[in-house]
Parts: sequence; C-alpha cells; structure tokens
Amino acid sequence: MIKLLVVGTVAYDSIQTPFGKVENVLGGSALHFTNSASFFTDVGVVATVGRDFDLSAINFLKDRHVNLSGIKIDDGKTFRWEGKYGYDLNQAITLKTELNVIESFKPNIPEEMKKANYLFLANIDPALQLHVIDQVESPEAVVLDTMNFWIGNKFHELMKVIERVHMLVINEAELREISKEYNLVRGARKIMELGPSCVIAKRGEYGVLMVSKDEVFLCPAFPLEDVFDPTGAGDTFAGGFMGYLANMGDTSLETVKQAIIMGSLMASFSVEDFGINRIKALTYDEIKARYKSFRKCMEFGDITTLA
Amino acid sequence: MIKLLVVGTVAYDSIQTPFGKVENVLGGSALHFTNSASFFTDVGVVATVGRDFDLSAINFLKDRHVNLSGIKIDDGKTFRWEGKYGYDLNQAITLKTELNVIESFKPNIPEEMKKANYLFLANIDPALQLHVIDQVESPEAVVLDTMNFWIGNKFHELMKVIERVHMLVINEAELREISKEYNLVRGARKIMELGPSCVIAKRGEYGVLMVSKDEVFLCPAFPLEDVFDPTGAGDTFAGGFMGYLANMGDTSLETVKQAIIMGSLMASFSVEDFGINRIKALTYDEIKARYKSFRKCMEFGDITTLA
Repeated sequence: MIKLLVVGTVAYDSIQTPFGKVENVLGGSALHFTNSASFFTDVGVVATVGRDFDLSAINFLKDRHVNLSGIKIDDGKTFRWEGKYGYDLNQAITLKTELNVIESFKPNIPEEMKKANYLFLANIDPALQLHVIDQVESPEAVVLDTMNFWIGNKFHELMKVIERVHMLVINEAELREISKEYNLVRGARKIMELGPSCVIAKRGEYGVLMVSKDEVFLCPAFPLEDVFDPTGAGDTFAGGFMGYLANMGDTSLETVKQAIIMGSLMASFSVEDFGINRIKALTYDEIKARYKSFRKCMEFGDITTLA
Repeated sequence: MIKLLVVGTVAYDSIQTPFGKVENVLGGSALHFTNSASFFTDVGVVATVGRDFDLSAINFLKDRHVNLSGIKIDDGKTFRWEGKYGYDLNQAITLKTELNVIESFKPNIPEEMKKANYLFLANIDPALQLHVIDQVESPEAVVLDTMNFWIGNKFHELMKVIERVHMLVINEAELREISKEYNLVRGARKIMELGPSCVIAKRGEYGVLMVSKDEVFLCPAFPLEDVFDPTGAGDTFAGGFMGYLANMGDTSLETVKQAIIMGSLMASFSVEDFGINRIKALTYDEIKARYKSFRKCMEFGDITTLA
C-alpha cells in the first residue's frame, strides 16, 4: 500500500547551464518528486509517457518501493522540455516545450492508490488537479504546486483547487502573483484565507519561507560551492518534504518544519548533477552527514547580554 | 573612552518608496551605523557635514555615549542622496547624489579615538579608508564595507584595504563583483586568501551569509509584514554586528555568529520607518522581544528518523 501519491509529469529534458549540457535526460515533476520522496515512504506515481519512453530507465524506483503502475503509456511522444540557465541559477529560461502526450493527459487514479494518505498535486492544469482530488478518498494532506502559466490562464480553476488543499509549495514569484501582494508573509496570509493552513514559498538559493496561521518558519538553503543544474530542485524539495510527512504520519507544525529541512536537504543534493542523477545515486549516510552540516550552519549560542 | 570607531558619511537623504516619501531626512552610513551600535557600546564617529547641518538633531546620540567630536563642519553643504525603491525593496535606484563636503573629506582621527578596539570603515573612497587604518593604533577588528562604484573605479586601492582588514560586510552583488565568482561561498574564499578571516554577505530580505575559514553560517532575515524604507539597513546591520562584538570584547566565531543575529535584528527594525526614526525610538525591551520571535522562526526539532 502506498502512503504518498503524486500526479505530475514524466519528461525528457534538455538542459544547458554554464557548467555543461545534456539532451533528453529523465525529468518531469513527478519523477523528481518520486526520486526524492522514495527515500522516506512508499510512493505511487500517476503520469503519462509516450511510446518512445524507456521504462527500464526508471525501474530502479521499484527497488525503493515505488508503485509505477499509474504511469500510462499513450500513443505519441513523451513530454519534452528544453531550457537553459545563466550564472543566476535561480532563473530558468524555457527554450522549447513539447507537450506531446501531456495534451490529452487525464489522470485516472488506480484503485489501490485512492486511499493514499498524502497527495502531491505537481504542476499540471488545475482542472486536472481538481479531477485528481475528486478521486482520492480522504487524504490527510493535499499539497499543491503550480506555475505562472496556470495563474495567468486558469486563475478561476486554480482558486478552486486552492480551496481544497491543505498546503501550497510554490515559488516566491508565484506566491506574489497568486496573492497580488509583494510581501510574502502578507501574500501567504491572503492565500490561507481561502482554506490552506500553510504556505511554503521556495526561494531558490535563498531557502524556504513557511507561513502558518500562528508561525513563520525560515529555512535557509544549504550553502553549496558547486551548483550544477537547478532543474527539478523544487520538486525534489517537495518530495523530501512530503516523503518525510508521510514517514512521520502527521502534519503538526513541528513535523512540517522538520519536513521543510528534509526537503531543503534533498534539493541541495539534486542541484549537484544534471537531471535525477544525484538523487538516484544518493545514500542515507550522505543525507545524515549533510543534515549534520546543515544544522551546524544555522546554530548559534543564545544571546543573554541584552542590557 | 570609545570602544568602537566608525568613519563614514552623515547625510541628508530624500527617499521615495511605494509607501511614502520624505525629503532631507537624516541619513548616511556613519549615522545609521552609530544609531544602531550605540545600543551596545561606546561609539566614536568621524565624518564631515556642511554649514547647513543641524547638529542638534543628532544630540540624542550623546545620551547613548556617542562621541560626536569627530564630526567636522566644513564650508559647503552636507552630502545629499536622493533615491527611490519599487516594490522590490532590495533594489535602490539612485536619483541624485550631491557629494558636497564629502568631496574634500580627509578623515583625521581625534587622538582619543585612535585607541578604539573596533573599527568600521563604512563605504567611502578606499584611499581614505587606508588613511584611517594608518591612524588607528592596534584595533582588534577592522571591518570593511564598500560599494560597486569603488570596485569599478578604485579596485587597486580597494584590494590594499582588503589586505588590511579582518572582515568584510558587503552586499552579495559586491561580493560577486570583487571576487569575480558567481558562487558566494567560493567568492568569499577567494577574498579570504587576501587576508580577511571572514566575509559577511548581506542579501537584503534573504538575510546574511557568513563564510569563515572553517564554517559557513546562515542567518535569515526576520520576516516582516511591513517594510517601509530599506535605506540604511545595511549600515544598521553593521552597527548591531560591531556594537555587539565590541560589547562582548571578542571576535571568536561564536561571538561573530551572535553578532550577525543582532545585526539582523537591528536591521529588521530599521526598515520599519523612514531614515533613522525607528532605531532612534527603539527600546531594549523591543529588541529582546523580537530576538525571541526571531529565534522561534529558526527553530526546529532534531530529525532522528533517518533510516
């Protein structure tokens, strides 16, 4: 039985960064998410790929208890994204998007996945996200991602989704765009009025800001000397975040904070190589060691000398 | 006897933000710095103002044990800066700079200030900064700020200053420009090869990154819902940072980390009103209360469940 369900994309990405170039590597929100989440819990994936997709390349996920039976092979080609980054790795420039089989994607959740306790709605059409929510029985936490395209073109549908989710995990620019507030804390509070109990803003190399009803939590990004490819870092964050929540089996604020730390840790590995490579090769010992370093970067002695 | 000496500017600023507009309010790096540092230690100021400057407006600093005798009144007008900000308060747009008496500024340190243990070289011509270093006898810590103008126009002199200081407190863009490295950790290490033991990169609403020989420290910015005017936030940070160091009387890494927290706290107040107003009216109780909130925003329970 899976605990965590993700609905999103499986793709072939072509990526240029100042440090190199790759063509048609495995990517897509659902794949980056699952690759990361599978370190912590049993994941089910719902997505679509074309006849050209090499399923054997993601077989390694089965060894991590991922249920891939929800990946449907459709006539046509797999979704493709081509993008590049300059030295400011926070900004992706999309060169080409080929939707291919994504255009007719209709996510049907396999029976055995409908009881998933945790649901991640990766960045797809809000109308499809609603269709997914309708199928999952009584999840403890539904978490939403989206992008500027849907905010601009399907705002009404997106608002309906937001009303039905528990948390948002979105970029800070998207938070500003949805809320029409420049200030992130204010923007988050505005979104929470629609229903969600928590908004998590991803800020790339600057880390993560979480706003809940009563608290704000600040998680910096792990300071790396070599960032190679930021593609998928956001979904890898979400995977670590939700994988950890599902593993702990609760969504208390304390667990959410720890889950944000875990998501940030996973994202810090993700950017060290192209595509899914780094997380595919990752070990628990590496996660543990970096967790220790990460904590150390944030620790300071209590200040007791205020006059 | 002062413990902390600052050499920089005292100015009249005219500022526009999306939230309001003020003309000819007190500003300048030395004033913002001192306003903040005087909460923690005895400060001496060396700067120049014109005949038009109303000294009585900064008399309140004397009650906080600030020695203002190093502020020289020269023939001419006081330095003036005019700038504006859009909603992205991280980016100041300079509308007008009138150097006035700054053009002939030659900082001579009064005898009683030459024994200061802590020296802050605020953003002025690197040639003048060198002249200041030569006059101060044996400071425990010399900390440097600068700006893109000097990096572009007096790079050679700036390098000579960097060789003689213990720490840099600069914006992340300046760190990139000086080091010619996009990655901040790498850039900081490159600068440290020239002499400094520590580089502190200010990242506006994203907080502060410190790199020392053996450690990296990440300090987020306190999450505010209302940011009014960021002018002087960087100098207010430096004031809290160095005031705290001088108060503690040591520059161990642990104290430096706490000092960064204190600097960030002071900066978080500074941006809540125009010019120096907020810090002028600040109380220790307010600092203590926000320190508690700030700590809470960064705390999370230790993760112990890694497989």
